[in-house]
Amino acid sequence: MGIPFLLHLISFCNNPCDIMAHSRGRKVNFGAGPAVLPETVLHQFGEDLINFEGTGVGIGELSHRTGTFETGVLEAATESLHSLTGYSRDAWTVLWMTGGGTGQFAAVPLNLAGQNGSAAIYLVTGVWSEKAAEEAIRILGPLRVLIVDLREGNTGRSLKCPIEQVKAVVLENPRIAYIYYCDNETVDGVELPDPNYFQDRLSSIVSAPFVCDSSSNFLSRPLPRASGPTGLIFAGVQKNLGAAGVTVVLMKRELLEGERVFSFCPSVMNYALMAKNNSLLNTPPVMAIHMCNLMLKHLRNRFTTLQDLDRFSLLKSGKLYSALEASGRYVCPVSREFRSRMNVVFKALDAVDEAEFLKRTLSAGLIQLKGHRSVGGFRASLYNALEEAEVDKLISLL
Amino acid sequence: MGIPFLLHLISFCNNPCDIMAHSRGRKVNFGAGPAVLPETVLHQFGEDLINFEGTGVGIGELSHRTGTFETGVLEAATESLHSLTGYSRDAWTVLWMTGGGTGQFAAVPLNLAGQNGSAAIYLVTGVWSEKAAEEAIRILGPLRVLIVDLREGNTGRSLKCPIEQVKAVVLENPRIAYIYYCDNETVDGVELPDPNYFQDRLSSIVSAPFVCDSSSNFLSRPLPRASGPTGLIFAGVQKNLGAAGVTVVLMKRELLEGERVFSFCPSVMNYALMAKNNSLLNTPPVMAIHMCNLMLKHLRNRFTTLQDLDRFSLLKSGKLYSALEASGRYVCPVSREFRSRMNVVFKALDAVDEAEFLKRTLSAGLIQLKGHRSVGGFRASLYNALEEAEVDKLISLL
Repeated sequence: MGIPFLLHLISFCNNPCDIMAHSRGRKVNFGAGPAVLPETVLHQFGEDLINFEGTGVGIGELSHRTGTFETGVLEAATESLHSLTGYSRDAWTVLWMTGGGTGQFAAVPLNLAGQNGSAAIYLVTGVWSEKAAEEAIRILGPLRVLIVDLREGNTGRSLKCPIEQVKAVVLENPRIAYIYYCDNETVDGVELPDPNYFQDRLSSIVSAPFVCDSSSNFLSRPLPRASGPTGLIFAGVQKNLGAAGVTVVLMKRELLEGERVFSFCPSVMNYALMAKNNSLLNTPPVMAIHMCNLMLKHLRNRFTTLQDLDRFSLLKSGKLYSALEASGRYVCPVSREFRSRMNVVFKALDAVDEAEFLKRTLSAGLIQLKGHRSVGGFRASLYNALEEAEVDKLISLL
Repeated sequence: MGIPFLLHLISFCNNPCDIMAHSRGRKVNFGAGPAVLPETVLHQFGEDLINFEGTGVGIGELSHRTGTFETGVLEAATESLHSLTGYSRDAWTVLWMTGGGTGQFAAVPLNLAGQNGSAAIYLVTGVWSEKAAEEAIRILGPLRVLIVDLREGNTGRSLKCPIEQVKAVVLENPRIAYIYYCDNETVDGVELPDPNYFQDRLSSIVSAPFVCDSSSNFLSRPLPRASGPTGLIFAGVQKNLGAAGVTVVLMKRELLEGERVFSFCPSVMNYALMAKNNSLLNTPPVMAIHMCNLMLKHLRNRFTTLQDLDRFSLLKSGKLYSALEASGRYVCPVSREFRSRMNVVFKALDAVDEAEFLKRTLSAGLIQLKGHRSVGGFRASLYNALEEAEVDKLISLL
């Protein structure tokens, strides 16, 4: 045992976590969310649990009323979001909320449809937009929720964009509070071909703001045009941006004004109150926001723009879809135009293949590939923290 | 450099975090929440971030639909709560929710006061019960929120229990949905002398269920009698039980039945829906629940019953209150009967002393001792993870 070995050991102790990364049996996580996070982010978080930036307390113990949190974490994460998305502070506010996407399903009608007689259009493209419409019905009643189902047929998943149907809905209901849609349907593996897909097709028909559930493709490509008809975008962070526990809302400031909110809207769901209090109306989920901040730093270190992240996502998903088609043994039920870059759903043509494939992936250390229980088959989620080499591993097993 | 030294170094590397505890400059954290957590819990959490229980993914990346989470984390934490509190599964349900105490300020009226014409009594004892009443007014309107202010005078904080006033309120409003109170007022440093204080005095006058905000003294002493009139207890966990991001609700099952809930109650705030879905209606805050589970294990390892935790709290707070009285330089504005075991508020008789004391505590590594901005002076929060020796340090500086 010579000096070099000893020095090696000592260097282990200086930064003990970094060196354990691959010795700890980490698997390739294709989960749909909570999903994979970069190891560097996790190691930093582990350090920050004990003593965060010299405060003498860990991030889970840090008061949300300290400058360390307000400036160093919350404001830093907010700034990163403005910077990455290009959504200006003048026109847009960033809110850090709780309750996940399902919480937003309620918050959206509670905040935006409080005006007498106004109704909301729900463009249904899959499981999650359907759930959002159901929640809106609970809050607004069935007469004020105008559902336009865009799902085409039963064989193969595709979408139609029924402009005439939307026109008819608008004609009958002149006071539209908002038009709601989901940019990427996690369960169905259906994603809109571009971020302005509905805005481009429908904004000439209806002048209401568009509300976008971007939970499962947030920050994987540019957002809708900031100056366009989009008014609100929300995302649970546990897919592309962090660990479950916080929900990001980007909201056009002009929507905070006026009398859109119901009087009975819970304060923790009230956008104007949250904005006024800089998301510190009450104790925020400090740890979850810190994880987002670390993840945002990680993304900004590696990618300059959201276009870069789009290229990264297209590269990974493109490879996988091509390999599935080339295999002759697996099929993707979604029509090409609407295939998700985030959630690649596929089935084996033969049930025997299906069981055998799952077995092979598991023994290769690839996990969370089973499709959603309502759909079956497989689903490979390719979020921001999943590497191209990890997709290659999956492809090699097809 | 002999073998023993080398072995010592190697043992460092086997469990690298444990040995760093005191070398990392951790301070004594008297913060009111988010608050101190045990170092052993933080180190375990740090390990679990990388590879949780051999799953190959960290706790922040773990699907909430896995048995590892549902059984090993959520159910384990729930079981610990039933076991520690003695609240049976037959009669009580445990819910893991988001939105903090402020979220519950809305959830309580939304879930319990939906019946036509029913009203709620709010017993106001400080800042937080007042805020809860204000939120109830937003939801129910002012006519259905019956506020009984128990705060006595302006000099010295004390409480009265105006039985006649409550009687009069009940006589005028025969349909009382619930009686709300806060067991420990974090800002005011006021705590009810025992967990059944209001129940014992008022349950013969009004038959409605009692709703208790126990955010800042949860699991620091026994809960109200399980078979008594108490119907619901909630607590944000970032004081005695974990890191900010999850809220525990203990609810009598019989309250889930009947038509108490408003139709417009958001699903993530709907107790019956959350209970039906075992708190997995949507993606829960996995990391925050895991922190609670670790903290519950820690508490159960060290304390057998909630009586033990009460003794521990009384020991720490008793010492500090005695030292304050003995000092002749500091005063506690709260009358003896209602002094909190959790949040000891005090002032220096002399403003010069105040500045000098704060300076001395800071240089001794004692932080977060400033009183709430609305009250001034000092506040030492003595939650479950704060050790007796740490209180002694503070006392030595008085």
